[in-house]
Amino acid sequence: IGLCRTEHMFMADDRLPVVREMIMAFSEDERRNALDRLLPHQQSDFEGIFEAMAGLPVTIRLLDPPLHEFLPPLEDATDDRMRSRIRALRESNPMLGTRGCRLGLMFPEIYEMQVRAIIRAAIAVRERTGDPPLVEIMHPLVGFREELHRLRALTLATAADEGEIEFLVGTMIELPRACIRADEIAEEADFFSFGTNDLTQTALGFSRDDAEGKFLTHYLQDGVLERNPFETLDQSGVGDLMKIAVERGRSVKPDIKMGICGEHGGEPASVAFCHSLDLDYVSCSPFRVPLARLAAAQAALSESGVEAVVVGG
Amino acid sequence: IGLCRTEHMFMADDRLPVVREMIMAFSEDERRNALDRLLPHQQSDFEGIFEAMAGLPVTIRLLDPPLHEFLPPLEDATDDRMRSRIRALRESNPMLGTRGCRLGLMFPEIYEMQVRAIIRAAIAVRERTGDPPLVEIMHPLVGFREELHRLRALTLATAADEGEIEFLVGTMIELPRACIRADEIAEEADFFSFGTNDLTQTALGFSRDDAEGKFLTHYLQDGVLERNPFETLDQSGVGDLMKIAVERGRSVKPDIKMGICGEHGGEPASVAFCHSLDLDYVSCSPFRVPLARLAAAQAALSESGVEAVVVGG
Repeated sequence: IGLCRTEHMFMADDRLPVVREMIMAFSEDERRNALDRLLPHQQSDFEGIFEAMAGLPVTIRLLDPPLHEFLPPLEDATDDRMRSRIRALRESNPMLGTRGCRLGLMFPEIYEMQVRAIIRAAIAVRERTGDPPLVEIMHPLVGFREELHRLRALTLATAADEGEIEFLVGTMIELPRACIRADEIAEEADFFSFGTNDLTQTALGFSRDDAEGKFLTHYLQDGVLERNPFETLDQSGVGDLMKIAVERGRSVKPDIKMGICGEHGGEPASVAFCHSLDLDYVSCSPFRVPLARLAAAQAALSESGVEAVVVGG
Repeated sequence: IGLCRTEHMFMADDRLPVVREMIMAFSEDERRNALDRLLPHQQSDFEGIFEAMAGLPVTIRLLDPPLHEFLPPLEDATDDRMRSRIRALRESNPMLGTRGCRLGLMFPEIYEMQVRAIIRAAIAVRERTGDPPLVEIMHPLVGFREELHRLRALTLATAADEGEIEFLVGTMIELPRACIRADEIAEEADFFSFGTNDLTQTALGFSRDDAEGKFLTHYLQDGVLERNPFETLDQSGVGDLMKIAVERGRSVKPDIKMGICGEHGGEPASVAFCHSLDLDYVSCSPFRVPLARLAAAQAALSESGVEAVVVGG
């Protein structure tokens, strides 16, 4: 836990209509108008999270999914203008389309609103509780240094606008190119978080939606693959890319904070592998925390020569 | 030139209905029945190509695109069974779905038919002309050694069935995982051909269809990227993955034949880069051949210390 995916905040019933207005907007003004109405909702969500996490680090991932996930169905369009906008936003491979930081670069006002809401919330919570929350702002789907360079500048400028507060700016490492050029990207990042689900999709060329239930199921039944790489990290492929990223990232910034987030963070073999890469943290869904803790402890013990701990033995 | 993409042979007007029958088949028997009718068409296409290329190497890529590209539109379905089959074959990210060697592993009878047609054509042309064609059979979208291991066995067994002829079995290197594990894959391959278009899509997480005209256009206008990576190879990202693949592939098979195919093969800077990787060949569309030759010559000259050749000077 500790990772906050902001898209769920966009999906709530009372907000989706405003989100749709924002996406369907034909001009920046229209878009900013909708974003202004979303800001207080996001801010109050963040305040709640910061208070609940009282002093523990909270990593907030800025909007990631393809815009079309928020689109109304074509049948709901009320006029031709709306229909043509919906068609224009549709994508043939949305997983590889206009999502993540590409949204933030095409429509900077979206990430600007999110950063503003985060910083206002952090300042409000600090004032209420006396403790500043430990906030990490994370830009998803970065592949090129220049992307993060611009988004870091946008983040810092927006935050400076709101007042004095400390926070970190980092990125997801979830594209093969980001692993390969982790040296350049590290220069712009305070932390890396490996998104092993997306990294598996791109490194292997497997869309999870299309693989599970189709060719991947066949591969597993037929023994082409022994394990589902979305459940157990593909260590020799995806894992080796991560190893390259860790080495290259640390070569320019030895103390950069690194971890993974997502489903693999709760799977014992994958946790042990992350330990071998010397990652700093593992994030997973709350119900997997005990499993992840046990795996991390076992990895640490086995490294120090202890083979097994027998409880009550 | 020298690369033969077999999907165009499936698209011809007189074949598409049989191809659709094959795809829509609910059983292997139905599918084999349609494939039996496609075989003579493919064989005569290959005979024509082998005769035209008289003695030059011909690389044949087995069926690659997602099956759904051959599907009839849903509106054309004549009954519920057909409608449900079309729906079942649709994909949310077809670029990352059931395509390439995944087709050959799920439906071995498809690749078996293609290999049979190739070998029959090669034997027929050898008998007619006295010269055996130089045939290279290429399996697309391999990411795991086991995929190529099985498909190589299928290829050799099918060919042995048809008679005595020499040919090579190789693979496209077009997934980041294939670059990373090129050492394992090289053990099953006589040659590698880098598919830099697909490798760009997966390494960068860019769907070409969704990038050009959308976020990539914005990136280029706004200076986030200086060049379209589908036109000029992204040397520090995709190129570095290729470098890893070349090193790891040659570490287990020093004399493995390697080249690239696709649009980058006709672009001067990319050709010079391939030269620096010490690739054996470059394949591109016929109209780009003069450009590719010139770039290759310039790269060779510049390496040997010659700065420029002035013609008529």
